[in-house]
Amino acid sequence: MIGRLNHVAIAVPDLAAAAARYRDALGASVGEAQALPAHGVRVAFVDLPNSRVELMEPLGEDSPIAAFLSRNPAGGLHHLCYEVEDIRAARDHLLAAGARVLGDGEPKTGAHGRPVLFLHPKDFLGTLIELEEV
Amino acid sequence: MIGRLNHVAIAVPDLAAAAARYRDALGASVGEAQALPAHGVRVAFVDLPNSRVELMEPLGEDSPIAAFLSRNPAGGLHHLCYEVEDIRAARDHLLAAGARVLGDGEPKTGAHGRPVLFLHPKDFLGTLIELEEV
Repeated sequence: MIGRLNHVAIAVPDLAAAAARYRDALGASVGEAQALPAHGVRVAFVDLPNSRVELMEPLGEDSPIAAFLSRNPAGGLHHLCYEVEDIRAARDHLLAAGARVLGDGEPKTGAHGRPVLFLHPKDFLGTLIELEEV
Repeated sequence: MIGRLNHVAIAVPDLAAAAARYRDALGASVGEAQALPAHGVRVAFVDLPNSRVELMEPLGEDSPIAAFLSRNPAGGLHHLCYEVEDIRAARDHLLAAGARVLGDGEPKTGAHGRPVLFLHPKDFLGTLIELEEV
């Protein structure tokens, strides 16, 4: 069911500093920062040959990553995003397997304009999983 | 400098249950479990079209992931592994950039038989990074 690892997301307290770290110390290619006000984050993508790392800093008062950063002030691995071909079929399969989908179970429009769902970390080895339909 | 994302590692309390979760709920292909006594872990790889997820459970009394699992009993994202072409050149570049390499700075033989180094999480946004020469 799951396909490519679309990205690994790292929550960071300072996006410019994080981008500079990946660019200067790790010699990686980092794209321009983009504000995503509807998602409460500013992001920049590290482009790797086979996947991407999404660096995310909080944006606005109610950022969904604020609580994570208060627990992990230096930043930390936040979620994995796997691609699926049909997100509603994936959801139905997951629910039948006893896994929990966050929210009301209806796909939302994700940061890349495509349908996404998040799965409960307690059902997936303590890791938050995003599914993105591609 | 960094190349492909070789794998994302997830520390898990029960490898068989974790492998079944990825296989059954997420419909992924999971390889056979392998004991790596020299590294204090048992692992199984989830094969994705573009990368891999390494599921790791502790093996033996002094497993390097035991402390992580005592803080995160359900499991959690443990590290990212990036490929580099020349691990000593990568190390020298990192040290010049002010980043810390764990241990004595000499590459060790990693879980896949290739030279590896680990970088200090405090220098990389709270994420443990493994570099593997390929």
